[in-house]
Amino acid sequence: MTARVQAREIISTHHPLLKQIRAAWRRGALTPQGYCAVEGPHLVEEALRSGLEVAVLLASRSTAARLRQFQAAANGRLRCYLVPDKVFRSLSQTEAPQGIAALVRLKKHRLEECLARDDGLVAVVVGVQDPGNLGTLLRALEAFGGTACLLGPGTVSPYNPKAIRASAGALFRLPVFPRLPLDRIAAQCRAHGLLTLGLSPRAPQALTEIDLKKPVALFIGSEAAGLPENLEKNLDHLARIPLAAPVESLNAAVAASLAFYETARQREWKG
Amino acid sequence: MTARVQAREIISTHHPLLKQIRAAWRRGALTPQGYCAVEGPHLVEEALRSGLEVAVLLASRSTAARLRQFQAAANGRLRCYLVPDKVFRSLSQTEAPQGIAALVRLKKHRLEECLARDDGLVAVVVGVQDPGNLGTLLRALEAFGGTACLLGPGTVSPYNPKAIRASAGALFRLPVFPRLPLDRIAAQCRAHGLLTLGLSPRAPQALTEIDLKKPVALFIGSEAAGLPENLEKNLDHLARIPLAAPVESLNAAVAASLAFYETARQREWKG
Repeated sequence: MTARVQAREIISTHHPLLKQIRAAWRRGALTPQGYCAVEGPHLVEEALRSGLEVAVLLASRSTAARLRQFQAAANGRLRCYLVPDKVFRSLSQTEAPQGIAALVRLKKHRLEECLARDDGLVAVVVGVQDPGNLGTLLRALEAFGGTACLLGPGTVSPYNPKAIRASAGALFRLPVFPRLPLDRIAAQCRAHGLLTLGLSPRAPQALTEIDLKKPVALFIGSEAAGLPENLEKNLDHLARIPLAAPVESLNAAVAASLAFYETARQREWKG
Repeated sequence: MTARVQAREIISTHHPLLKQIRAAWRRGALTPQGYCAVEGPHLVEEALRSGLEVAVLLASRSTAARLRQFQAAANGRLRCYLVPDKVFRSLSQTEAPQGIAALVRLKKHRLEECLARDDGLVAVVVGVQDPGNLGTLLRALEAFGGTACLLGPGTVSPYNPKAIRASAGALFRLPVFPRLPLDRIAAQCRAHGLLTLGLSPRAPQALTEIDLKKPVALFIGSEAAGLPENLEKNLDHLARIPLAAPVESLNAAVAASLAFYETARQREWKG
């Protein structure tokens, strides 16, 4: 089964490569060499078709056949490792491990360039802690022509394995800027001509009343806390999504997705 | 701390009440007496403010003080139980148990009446297996004036504890009909004058091109499989949400929420 695959064997769960991947997932961080650790064949395919460098590919013994396929797609540049199924399961972050993990290098993006685009649809996420919500938000942002995602304080890392999975590959293509200082984000967006708009359930204006055709930065807070008060004061507009009583709020990823959709709709976006 | 609370003590993890709750959560079912088991003070509050009968309230010893508050809100009708913290943790379905669980009786709704409403916004969910997605969908459906949710085959139970939690109380108010046979749903909706519309990424028409002002039943399939082909053939329209390449699909709860939002928007819904 593994005859034509060039792969090194890893036996020990304490192998430095596995330790690096584990640490990256636990901390929601890149590896010391700056790679993003991803799990599952679907994400590896997404990374390859997004043109990312896949540096390391790891397969459980019973998934070895897939190594060859990925090796071909990656033009042989990548290093392959085989690990016993049991060792892979000990590494895996999913309930039903599919036996494939990889280290990929994300593209570098320049914040200034991303903010300067005249079709700007920038999401600024503040305090969203659920990784599935952040990933789902990134997926929707890309789907509606988003140009960048800025992550303020208190927001989960986009390199959290659940966030990566929920983004379904959007993280590999969309410019995402983690850990930005909140006090400058709004001013920086405005300096680049972006309308700064915060979603707030208490805002008197409805989202549909705002002109979203011009470049816009949408500020999205957490479900529980909303946006920080001193940030709200610094934005051009606040708007709410009208909800039927007694519903007081929506899931943060859903609320954000609706705002991206509304922007795309006003721009007569055809996908 | 527990001085003024009328509560029985449960010591054993094998107590029949705990067994019933565990079985209900494991199977995504109601209890043999037809109660829905819910966890967490927020959901108990939602059940009470939704006017549901709360029959049984269970608190861990260190949460005993909250029993009194709920007892007052429920007009003393409910039976209260105290359990050791350790026993509560063994029962809990959450990572950070908050020490409160309850058995509540959901309202009964008649399908015919729900389908006959002239402001009909009915969701028909087919094959959505992720409980968080179903709950999130219910929450958004209620927020945009949804009148009923019909669950076709292959869809997770709305009584799954993760679905209940993600619905954030919507399950307590929205008429939800589980386990309906697929072959009759479309005909039944049409017989009540509802436009039957399926979301499909391959549809030539965009959702914004469909008149959603009249009563509508929105059919939502799973992310992976979409709607069954023989169901799609029986619907009045198929429509897609326009997405930027290379994004091929959205999270099922997000796609559904966008369709509910678009319907509310066309109806000039003010919440």
